[in-house]
Amino acid sequence: MGAKIQTAVLGATGYAGFELTRLLVRHPELQKPLLLKRESGSCSQDLTEVFPALSGNGGYPLESFSIEKMKRAGVDLLFLATPHELSRSLVPDVLKAGIRVIDLSGAWRLRQAEHRAIYQFEDKDAALASEIMDVAVYGLPELHPVAIKSAALVANPGCYATSVILGLAPLAKAGWIDRSRGIISDSKSGVSGAGKEATARTHFVSVADNLAAYGVFRHRHLGEMVEQLGLSAEELTFTPHLLPIPRGILSTLYVSLSQTMTASEVENCYRKFYEGKRWVRVFAPPRLPEIQYSLQSNYCDIGFCLADDGRRLVVVSCIDNLLKGAAGQAVQNMNLMYGWNEAEGLQ
Amino acid sequence: MGAKIQTAVLGATGYAGFELTRLLVRHPELQKPLLLKRESGSCSQDLTEVFPALSGNGGYPLESFSIEKMKRAGVDLLFLATPHELSRSLVPDVLKAGIRVIDLSGAWRLRQAEHRAIYQFEDKDAALASEIMDVAVYGLPELHPVAIKSAALVANPGCYATSVILGLAPLAKAGWIDRSRGIISDSKSGVSGAGKEATARTHFVSVADNLAAYGVFRHRHLGEMVEQLGLSAEELTFTPHLLPIPRGILSTLYVSLSQTMTASEVENCYRKFYEGKRWVRVFAPPRLPEIQYSLQSNYCDIGFCLADDGRRLVVVSCIDNLLKGAAGQAVQNMNLMYGWNEAEGLQ
Amino acid sequence: MGAKIQTAVLGATGYAGFELTRLLVRHPELQKPLLLKRESGSCSQDLTEVFPALSGNGGYPLESFSIEKMKRAGVDLLFLATPHELSRSLVPDVLKAGIRVIDLSGAWRLRQAEHRAIYQFEDKDAALASEIMDVAVYGLPELHPVAIKSAALVANPGCYATSVILGLAPLAKAGWIDRSRGIISDSKSGVSGAGKEATARTHFVSVADNLAAYGVFRHRHLGEMVEQLGLSAEELTFTPHLLPIPRGILSTLYVSLSQTMTASEVENCYRKFYEGKRWVRVFAPPRLPEIQYSLQSNYCDIGFCLADDGRRLVVVSCIDNLLKGAAGQAVQNMNLMYGWNEAEGLQ
Amino acid sequence: MGAKIQTAVLGATGYAGFELTRLLVRHPELQKPLLLKRESGSCSQDLTEVFPALSGNGGYPLESFSIEKMKRAGVDLLFLATPHELSRSLVPDVLKAGIRVIDLSGAWRLRQAEHRAIYQFEDKDAALASEIMDVAVYGLPELHPVAIKSAALVANPGCYATSVILGLAPLAKAGWIDRSRGIISDSKSGVSGAGKEATARTHFVSVADNLAAYGVFRHRHLGEMVEQLGLSAEELTFTPHLLPIPRGILSTLYVSLSQTMTASEVENCYRKFYEGKRWVRVFAPPRLPEIQYSLQSNYCDIGFCLADDGRRLVVVSCIDNLLKGAAGQAVQNMNLMYGWNEAEGLQ
Repeated sequence: MGAKIQTAVLGATGYAGFELTRLLVRHPELQKPLLLKRESGSCSQDLTEVFPALSGNGGYPLESFSIEKMKRAGVDLLFLATPHELSRSLVPDVLKAGIRVIDLSGAWRLRQAEHRAIYQFEDKDAALASEIMDVAVYGLPELHPVAIKSAALVANPGCYATSVILGLAPLAKAGWIDRSRGIISDSKSGVSGAGKEATARTHFVSVADNLAAYGVFRHRHLGEMVEQLGLSAEELTFTPHLLPIPRGILSTLYVSLSQTMTASEVENCYRKFYEGKRWVRVFAPPRLPEIQYSLQSNYCDIGFCLADDGRRLVVVSCIDNLLKGAAGQAVQNMNLMYGWNEAEGLQ
Repeated sequence: MGAKIQTAVLGATGYAGFELTRLLVRHPELQKPLLLKRESGSCSQDLTEVFPALSGNGGYPLESFSIEKMKRAGVDLLFLATPHELSRSLVPDVLKAGIRVIDLSGAWRLRQAEHRAIYQFEDKDAALASEIMDVAVYGLPELHPVAIKSAALVANPGCYATSVILGLAPLAKAGWIDRSRGIISDSKSGVSGAGKEATARTHFVSVADNLAAYGVFRHRHLGEMVEQLGLSAEELTFTPHLLPIPRGILSTLYVSLSQTMTASEVENCYRKFYEGKRWVRVFAPPRLPEIQYSLQSNYCDIGFCLADDGRRLVVVSCIDNLLKGAAGQAVQNMNLMYGWNEAEGLQ
Repeated sequence: MGAKIQTAVLGATGYAGFELTRLLVRHPELQKPLLLKRESGSCSQDLTEVFPALSGNGGYPLESFSIEKMKRAGVDLLFLATPHELSRSLVPDVLKAGIRVIDLSGAWRLRQAEHRAIYQFEDKDAALASEIMDVAVYGLPELHPVAIKSAALVANPGCYATSVILGLAPLAKAGWIDRSRGIISDSKSGVSGAGKEATARTHFVSVADNLAAYGVFRHRHLGEMVEQLGLSAEELTFTPHLLPIPRGILSTLYVSLSQTMTASEVENCYRKFYEGKRWVRVFAPPRLPEIQYSLQSNYCDIGFCLADDGRRLVVVSCIDNLLKGAAGQAVQNMNLMYGWNEAEGLQ
Repeated sequence: MGAKIQTAVLGATGYAGFELTRLLVRHPELQKPLLLKRESGSCSQDLTEVFPALSGNGGYPLESFSIEKMKRAGVDLLFLATPHELSRSLVPDVLKAGIRVIDLSGAWRLRQAEHRAIYQFEDKDAALASEIMDVAVYGLPELHPVAIKSAALVANPGCYATSVILGLAPLAKAGWIDRSRGIISDSKSGVSGAGKEATARTHFVSVADNLAAYGVFRHRHLGEMVEQLGLSAEELTFTPHLLPIPRGILSTLYVSLSQTMTASEVENCYRKFYEGKRWVRVFAPPRLPEIQYSLQSNYCDIGFCLADDGRRLVVVSCIDNLLKGAAGQAVQNMNLMYGWNEAEGLQ
C-alpha cells in the first residue's frame, strides 16, 4: 500500500463541501483533509461549529486559504466547493503549484464559449484561461473515465446536468432520439441544490407545501447538458422546479424515438451502455426510480416507460444532488484519478 | 330572495367530500346539507368524529343513503363524492327521482367509449347508461357554462384534468398548437389527490422526502383531457407525480406552437379566452404560478414562458386539487346551475 | 346599519399583517383597509407583489405611513404588525390623533416593568409611555372582554402566550394548581412564528426533518404568561420548539393539581370557564387536540389527560399562530371594540 | 482474525429490520446475514422488492423462518425485529438451539411484572418465560456493558426509552433529582417509530402540517424508563408526540434538582458519566442538540439549560430512532457481545 494522499477542501462550510468532507474523512486512502476558507468567508474556526452533526471525532479546524500553506502540507489534490467566479480565478495558480483540482463549480465545465455567457466570467488572463480550459475534463465518470484518470483539472458536473445527461446519454450516443421533435427535461430538485444562503426563496414557509418552476429556458446547467449530449440548445427544453424536500433530484425526460422500438430494446440499450458502471442502476420496467431510493447514496437510478406506439419514451432519472450530483461524484472522480476502486469511500 | 336550496352529499367522509361540506355549510343560498353515507361505508355517526376541525358549530350527523330519505328531505341537488362504480350505479335512480346530480367521480365524464375502458364499468342497463351519458355535461365552467346551467347531471372534472385542460384550452381552441410534435403534461399533485385510504403508497414515510412518477401513459384522467381538448390520445403525454405535500397541483405543459409568436400574443390569447372568468388568473411573464398561490382558493393560476425561438412554450398551471380540482369546482357548477354568482360561497 | 369603519394596517407585508389584511378585506363591517408601510420597509408598491395569492380582486396599494394620511382617510382603527420598538414609538402620536390601535407586537403587553426588560425599550418620554401603558388593555378576549370594548389601545397577545394562557387560565383562576410544584409548558410552533426574515434558522434545509428547542427560560412571551396567570416567573418553565411546519402551535402543559380530582371535574372547570366563548373548543377526553384541527381557523382547542393518581394533569392547547395567535385574535378584539358579533369576519 | 460470525434477521421488511440489515451487510466481522420471514408475513422473495434503495449489490433473498434452517446455516446470533408477541413465543426455542438473540421488540425488557401488563403477553409456559426473563439483559450499552457482553438474550431498548434514560441516567444515578416534584419527559418522534403499517394515523395527510400528542400516561416504553432509572411510575410523566418527519426523536426532560447547582456541575456530571462512551455526545451550554445532528448516526446527543435559580433543569436528548433507538443500538450490543470495537460497522 502506498502513502496516503493529502487532500484539501475550500468551501467545506457549504452543503456540498460539508458532504464532501464527511466522505473524505472516512476514505481509507486519504489523510485527514485540510479544510480551507476564504478570508471573506465563514468566521467559524472549526467545521463542527457550522455542522454539529460532525462533532464527536475531534476537531475539524478551518484555516485560511493559501497556496503556500497547501504546499507545506503536501496537498496533492484540492477540491473547490466555491462560487464559480472564485474557482475561475484560483485554478491557474493552484495548477501551477502542481496541485490537481476537482472543481465542483461551473467554472470549467463548458467547452463552447456561447454556453459560458451565462456564467459571466471575467478572466484576468483570457489566454491562460483558454489554455486551462483545454486541459479541463468534464468529470462525469460514466462518460469520460479515461480522460479523468490523467486530468489535472476535473470540472465536476452540475447536479441537474448529471441526472439529465446520464438519463439521456445511452439513447443519444446510439442515435435513437428524433431530435427534430425536441427533448424535454422536467426536473425537480430539493432545496439544498439552491445553496446554503438564506433568501426569501429558501425560507421554510416559502418552500413547504409548495412547488415552483424557475429559470425556464435559461438555467446554467443547460449548457453542459447540450454539450455533453451533442445537442443544439434549441433541441433541449429544461425546466427546473424547487421541491419541498432537503435533497434529491428527479428528472422526467421526454424523448421521441427515431424509430419504433420495444421496451426490451430500450432496456438493453441502457444496460449495455452502463455495463460495469458501478454507480448507475437501470430499473426494469414497470418499476420507476423514486427520489428516496438513491438518497444518501452515490447512485444514479434510471427507469423508463415506453408508450404503446413504441415511439414516445418517458425516462426517469434520480440522484442525491449532494452525492452523485456533487460530493459523491467528486470522490468517484478522485478514485479514478488515483487508480482506486470507483466505489472506495462511497459505500 | 327565493327559498333556500336543499343539498345532500354522499361521501362527506372523504377529502373532497369533507371540503365540499365545509363549503356548502357556509353557502348563503343553501340550507344545511344532508350528509349521507353508504351502509358499507364509514361507521361514524357524525362528521366531526372523522374531522374534528369541523366541530364547534353543532353536529353534522351522517345518515344512511336512500332515495326515499332524500325525497322526504326535499333534496334538490345531490353531490356524489364516491367511487366511480358507485356513482355509475346510483345516478339513474337519483335522476329518475327528479334530483339533480353533481358527480365528483369519473363515472360520467367520458363521451367516447374508448377512453372509458380504463374505468371498467359494468352497467346493468347499458342502454339506460348510454342515454344518461348523452345528457351528462362535463362540468368545467370555463368551457361549458351554458350546458351546465341546465344540466340534470354534471360530471365534475378530475383534478389533474382541470389543471391541464385550463392550461391548454386557449391555445388548443385557437389552433395554435403544432399537434404533430406532441404535447406533454408533466403534472405533480399533493397526496390528498390519492384519496384517504391508508396504503403503502400514502404512508408518511413513503411520501416525505420523496418524489415519484406513476401511471405514465395510463392515468384515468388522460381520457377527459384529450376529449375536452380535441386531441387524439397519442398527441398528449401525461405523467403524474406524487408530491410530498398534502394538497395542490402544478402542471408543467410543453407545447410547440404552430407558428412563431411573441410573448404578448400568447398572453393575449390567454387573457381573451379567460376574460370575465372569475376563477382563472393569468399571470404576466415572467411571473409563474406556484402551488402556494392558489392553495385554499378556487383559482386556477396560469403563467407561461416562451423560448427565444418563439415556438417552444412552457405553460404552468396550478390549482388546489380539493377546491378548483374537486369541491370548489362542484360549488362553482352549482352556482351556475341555480343562476347564482359564480363566486358565491367560494370567497 | 351604521357607516362602515375605516381601518389601516402598518406591516401588511409580514406574515401576520398579510393574514390580517385578508381578514379585513372580507369583513362585512369594514371599508377596504388602508395599507401602510414604513419608509425603510418594503419597496413593493402593491401587496400582491409580495403575496401573489392575494391577486385577482384588484390592487392592494402600499402607501407610506403618516398620521396625516390616516386622518385624511378617516382611519378609525390602526393595526400595527410591526417590530415592538416601532410600535412603542408610534403609538403615542397615533392615540393623540384620536385613532384607536390594536398592536400585534409585544410593546404594550406587560404591566410589570421587570418582565419588560427583555424587550429593551428606549422610550423617549418615559412618563408618557407609562401613562399610555396604564390605559393599554391585554387583548385576550376570553379574559378581558369588557376592558377591550372600550380600549383605545389593545395589546394583542403573543402567539405562544395565547395557547398557554388559555390552556391554564381555568385552573389558575380556580386556584386548582399546586404552584409549589411548578408548571411546565412545552410548546411547539410552526416556522411562520419566527417571522418572514430569511435567516440561517428559517432556511428550509435547517428546519425540515428537524426539531429544535430554543430560548429556554428566556423567551419574550414568558412575561405575559406569568402576568396574566398571576404566577411568579419561577413557577412557570416555558420551552419553545421550532416545528417543521409552516404554521400552528401545540402547547403541552404539565400541572400538578392542588387536590385530587376526577376527569369530569377538570372538564367541567374548563367548560364553565369557556361557556359562551365562541373561539375556544374544549375537547372531551380521551380526545386531544391536534394542530391540524385549528389550522386556518380562529379556534383555540383545549383537551387534557388526567393521571390515575388524580393529580398529574397534561393539558394540550392548539391554535393557528397566525390567526388566534395573531391576526384572527386582532379581528376578534376589533369585533369587541365595535360591538359586533365576536365571530364576524372570522368564519 | 477469527472466522466471521453468521447472523440472521427475522423481520427485515420493517423499518428497523431494514436499517439493521443495511448495517449488518457492511459490518466487517460478519458474513452476509440470513434474512428470514414469517410464513404469514411478507410475500416478497427478496428484500430489494420492498426496499429498492438496497438494490445494486446482488440479491437479498427472504427465506421462511425455521430453527432448523438457522442451524444448518450456522447462525450464531439472531436479531428479532418482530412484534413482541412473536418474539416472546420464539425466543425459548431459539435459545435452546444455542443461538444468541438480540430482540428489538419489548418482549423481554421488563423485569417487574407490573409494567409488563401493557404488553399483554400470554406465555404458554410461564415458568420457562420467567426463567428466560431472569437471564435477559436490557441492552443499553452505556448502562450495562458487562452484562451485555455475556448475554444470551439482549432486550434492545425502545426508541423513546433510549432517549429518556440516557438523558436522565447521570442525574438519577448521582441522586441529584428531587423526585418528589416529579420528572417530565415531553418526547417527539418521527413517523417511522410508528411502524410500517399503513393506518389512518400514518397517512401522509394526517401527519403533514400537524403535531399530535398520544398515549399520555400509558405508553409502552414508560415501564422500561422507570425500571432503568429506579423510579416509581408516578414519578415520571411521559408524553409522546408524532412529528411530521420520517425519523428522529427529541425528548425535552424537565427535572427539579435536589440541591442548587451550577451549569458546570451539571455538565461535569454528564461528562463524567459518559466518559469513554463512544456513542453519547454531551453538548456544552448554551448549545442544545437538534434532531438533525444525530440523524443517520448512532449518537445520542445530550444538552441542557439550567434556570437562574439553579434548580430547574431542562435536558434535551436526541437520537435517530432507527439507529441508536433500534438497529444501531442492536449492532452496538452485538459488538459488545463479541468483543469488537463498539463503533464497528456504525461509522
